[in-house]
Amino acid sequence: MYLGSWLSRLCRGLSRPIGKTMRPIWGSFSRNLALSSQRIPEFSSFVARTNTCGELRSSHLGQEVTLCGWIQYRRQNTFLVLRDCHGLVQILIPQDESAASVRRILCEAPVESVVRVSGTVISRPPGQENPKMPTGEIEIKVKTAELLNACKKLPFEIKDFVKKTEALRLQYRYLDLRSFQMQYNLRLRSQMVMKMREYLCNLHGFVDIETPTLFKRTPGGAKEFLVPSREPGKFYSLPQSPQQFKQLLMVGGLDRYFQVARCYRDEGSRPDRQPEFTQIDIEMSFVEQTGIQRLVEGLLQYSWPGDKDPLVTPFPSMTFAEALATYGTDKPDTRFGMKIVDVSDVFRNTEIRFLQDALAKPQGTVKAICVHDGAEVLPIFLNAKKNWSSPFAKFIMDEERLELARSLEIQEEDMVLLTAGEHEKACSLLGKLRLECADLLEMRGAVLRDPAVFSFLWVVDFPLFLAKEESPTELESAHHPFTAPNSSDIHLLYTEPEKVRGQHYDLVLNGNEIGGGSVRIHDAQLQRYILETLLKEDVKLLSHLLQALDYGAPPHGGIALGLDRLVCLVTGAPSIRDVIAFPKSYRGQDLMSNAPDSVSPEELKPYHIHVLWPADSEEESASATPSKHLSS
Amino acid sequence: MYLGSWLSRLCRGLSRPIGKTMRPIWGSFSRNLALSSQRIPEFSSFVARTNTCGELRSSHLGQEVTLCGWIQYRRQNTFLVLRDCHGLVQILIPQDESAASVRRILCEAPVESVVRVSGTVISRPPGQENPKMPTGEIEIKVKTAELLNACKKLPFEIKDFVKKTEALRLQYRYLDLRSFQMQYNLRLRSQMVMKMREYLCNLHGFVDIETPTLFKRTPGGAKEFLVPSREPGKFYSLPQSPQQFKQLLMVGGLDRYFQVARCYRDEGSRPDRQPEFTQIDIEMSFVEQTGIQRLVEGLLQYSWPGDKDPLVTPFPSMTFAEALATYGTDKPDTRFGMKIVDVSDVFRNTEIRFLQDALAKPQGTVKAICVHDGAEVLPIFLNAKKNWSSPFAKFIMDEERLELARSLEIQEEDMVLLTAGEHEKACSLLGKLRLECADLLEMRGAVLRDPAVFSFLWVVDFPLFLAKEESPTELESAHHPFTAPNSSDIHLLYTEPEKVRGQHYDLVLNGNEIGGGSVRIHDAQLQRYILETLLKEDVKLLSHLLQALDYGAPPHGGIALGLDRLVCLVTGAPSIRDVIAFPKSYRGQDLMSNAPDSVSPEELKPYHIHVLWPADSEEESASATPSKHLSS
Repeated sequence: MYLGSWLSRLCRGLSRPIGKTMRPIWGSFSRNLALSSQRIPEFSSFVARTNTCGELRSSHLGQEVTLCGWIQYRRQNTFLVLRDCHGLVQILIPQDESAASVRRILCEAPVESVVRVSGTVISRPPGQENPKMPTGEIEIKVKTAELLNACKKLPFEIKDFVKKTEALRLQYRYLDLRSFQMQYNLRLRSQMVMKMREYLCNLHGFVDIETPTLFKRTPGGAKEFLVPSREPGKFYSLPQSPQQFKQLLMVGGLDRYFQVARCYRDEGSRPDRQPEFTQIDIEMSFVEQTGIQRLVEGLLQYSWPGDKDPLVTPFPSMTFAEALATYGTDKPDTRFGMKIVDVSDVFRNTEIRFLQDALAKPQGTVKAICVHDGAEVLPIFLNAKKNWSSPFAKFIMDEERLELARSLEIQEEDMVLLTAGEHEKACSLLGKLRLECADLLEMRGAVLRDPAVFSFLWVVDFPLFLAKEESPTELESAHHPFTAPNSSDIHLLYTEPEKVRGQHYDLVLNGNEIGGGSVRIHDAQLQRYILETLLKEDVKLLSHLLQALDYGAPPHGGIALGLDRLVCLVTGAPSIRDVIAFPKSYRGQDLMSNAPDSVSPEELKPYHIHVLWPADSEEESASATPSKHLSS
Repeated sequence: MYLGSWLSRLCRGLSRPIGKTMRPIWGSFSRNLALSSQRIPEFSSFVARTNTCGELRSSHLGQEVTLCGWIQYRRQNTFLVLRDCHGLVQILIPQDESAASVRRILCEAPVESVVRVSGTVISRPPGQENPKMPTGEIEIKVKTAELLNACKKLPFEIKDFVKKTEALRLQYRYLDLRSFQMQYNLRLRSQMVMKMREYLCNLHGFVDIETPTLFKRTPGGAKEFLVPSREPGKFYSLPQSPQQFKQLLMVGGLDRYFQVARCYRDEGSRPDRQPEFTQIDIEMSFVEQTGIQRLVEGLLQYSWPGDKDPLVTPFPSMTFAEALATYGTDKPDTRFGMKIVDVSDVFRNTEIRFLQDALAKPQGTVKAICVHDGAEVLPIFLNAKKNWSSPFAKFIMDEERLELARSLEIQEEDMVLLTAGEHEKACSLLGKLRLECADLLEMRGAVLRDPAVFSFLWVVDFPLFLAKEESPTELESAHHPFTAPNSSDIHLLYTEPEKVRGQHYDLVLNGNEIGGGSVRIHDAQLQRYILETLLKEDVKLLSHLLQALDYGAPPHGGIALGLDRLVCLVTGAPSIRDVIAFPKSYRGQDLMSNAPDSVSPEELKPYHIHVLWPADSEEESASATPSKHLSS
């Protein structure tokens, strides 16, 4: 691909800008979140306070209140700002001699100490109101104060978190959680999940069913953590999803299942992936693709945070073929255009050699995207200024220019990126460039992807199988082997299986895959044919599932939504680690507790395993007979 | 204990009667469960049916309906009973020639095949109504029918499940799930959990927060499954509860946390325990013991199934000392009396030698329970018929008889069980006998424990520490080392720590512990003293928690309710396996899929472990130098 070096130049020194986070202010979110429910929860029931700090307003004037919280800061020993999970409130430190002990407590306790105060809600003196603070019209005239726990010197200041390294934040996660943004993210997540449950359970009769996480290895299930059992040589496996169980529940007549399911995937070090993650897992009997799609649209609409624009349904839908041809990816970011256009016909008679060569090959194409205003900010390859400045400009004939300008709607100061090659590769490359261009334009101040816009998109009609990369004559499932073929393509299973499309659907949000599902195969014979004949899988490991399909399995289908990613996008957090209370680092470690950790040989004994240190395994590969090793 | 042999005779050949299950009928439960919510869910949204089988009533007469379900049975090719998740409905098989194809489908499809039928709801002919069937007034006049999936010959009949062995039920769990009882249990569980979430999230502002299950070994945390990581010698651990995380969330200012948490415990083979189980996990800041108790009472009252008597709150409370003295256990079944009475004073001047001996010892006591009507049904030891028939009767003096009759309220035909010995052991033995007597009386037809009665009880004021069994001069935590001491006992920590009571509370239902919690230690220095000085634990493994307490930890407390056990008791299921969709056998196996299973050495490689077959380990213990083994 001749654009390769340019691409790498473009990418060098560029990193994706972190997501634009919207920062609501303390004290506003709890009320917003609460209002999305039917009634405001009682945040102070059962505990030793009358109110939360953040909820106090002028309407509380004159009330005697007891508050518990952390000392956020203190000003000249006259004011103290107290913080709890709902926000900040100003405490007036009494100055008179009779309140010496209260004064001492409030003046001497270090910042981030925990105190309980009782007093009266009073107006701030005129002119001293703080309109930026939700509680800014009032303050507390304290009568009693109690130091509940003093705070030692902190490793960093809580209020200025953003500048800390992520490693430090993760090491002291319990301090990081006190930040406004983490409180907001975790509460919003909880509220969204609650609304989803209401929608599924209370409105649509779904049954919340827990499925095991100590299970058995899936065929081809690399990436599954193992759990040694007390039986020598026998291992449980932590499944990547409840896929088999949800299907078996349908065979069991449960009709409508959902679960907020913990899933596991051992991918070693991967940025922005977690070894354990959560999905909203759904399965229904007697359903077709559109049924699941409408259900999920309703689910997201119902659970969508009240402080964002309501979602419009149904979501648009696009075939995989169209997504690839237009956006160069199966997860298009449809918030902006810059679509890929096939300009092969423009160059049928071109004199430019590499375009000629590309078009001469079978499935050769020329593709282009037009980057509006790209000429102003991007390194120029082929821009559409009046001058068509490009090393190739002089070889482009006038009628080609006209035709190109027409099909790409080129205007002055636009830039055109052209590529030539096989359809899928050409599209895929331009798809990546499209995102890089968007990043670059936004770094220079353009707004292509408004953080308030949420573009959902269904991608459908995926191929059922792909050629294996390492062995292109063999097939593998594009998603998983339980996906039903499109009914109109079933005959192709026996003749041209690579052309079969599956009843699979992906849900994409702003260019991120946030869900995927399918109508499943409920016919045992078809499932066996696909597993054995087409995929050459060992069906012994799945015999229970195949048998289940024989015993009156209903037609069924489902979906799984990636909760971490979804909440990350909704909150605008820079990483999924910011919507998980205790995430692992990109190397899979818990930096706070130092997990995973060493264990003693004694602790391994009940599990009949021992550690094969790297030196051992070298010795092992050097040794000739594996049997010798087994008995060593 | 001189009653030992009698006890073992009593127990021999006795197994506890399985719980009395109440069997509601198909079609009634979905409406009951639904009604407990605000509105009836739409059970047929998004799918290819108009109604569920079980919901049809006379009010649907004349409606055109499409139903999907399983063929439950067929009678003389004229009727067919169709079943779905909501119940049964009768289908009239058309007899006229024009409907030959419909007739063929409905007559030829094997039982448990899946069909879709469309037709009209009509009245059954007069006299043919079935009042036992919720849909018994109507039937369906079919127009079209479609075979969705045929069923092969089943390994057993679905409708008559109770007689199958549990192993067979677990092997074909997806068929077992079709039984009414499993459908009821799983749906009731889902509904109860949903109501709990509403109560916690929507009514009381709790935040649902997921905590990691890939964590680090807990100090003294035997019983934790290990998960090898890709780093040689480093293991995750699957925690027994989110205890550390919930406390850290309080330090992080999350204020009110809950989670329906998956927990893990590797206890090897234990009947009626599961290697993975679920608890309702709750933690609050600024709370005292009574706050948690009132919260939990409200939680259970709110989520209690509508088809049972409402719960009365607050629940009664009893100290550990009283529970032991009166019921011989820390989890008394308070549905019936038969309380333990200390009759030491009655026998102060006894001539019976073994009673004399027992009372002469320090802390020697004589205890008794009176089994009402026990003389009629139980093997007699000392019964209180007029004759006082007992080998020891002649040694009991008249005034002793009078006093005994008075303190135990003995009536004719009652039986008295006497034991002598140290207080705790004597109570504990009589506590076990009390339950055995209740079993025996109930097997003979007495009703001591009405299945409609739910007796909740708080047990409080537990000792904070126990003497280690293997080394009585050392202390271990009675519950866990994070439990706060009763404030009135704190001074004893430094003088007589074994006398300190903890702020721990257990919730008991019908003699089963269904929850336990405590106010936690929020003072780092106190926590360190207990861990290091009193418990001699290695605090390195908990350094993150101790550090967190130093940085402004609020006072906090919480509780965990065992969901599996609670739902088991509420549904009256004989085992917790009946309220779990895919339980493990008592040996920790999934009998359906055959987990745990063997994995190839290739699959173990990324985890740097290898299997130590029993032969290896013998060889290992025979070998002299562990270092040799490490490098082998």
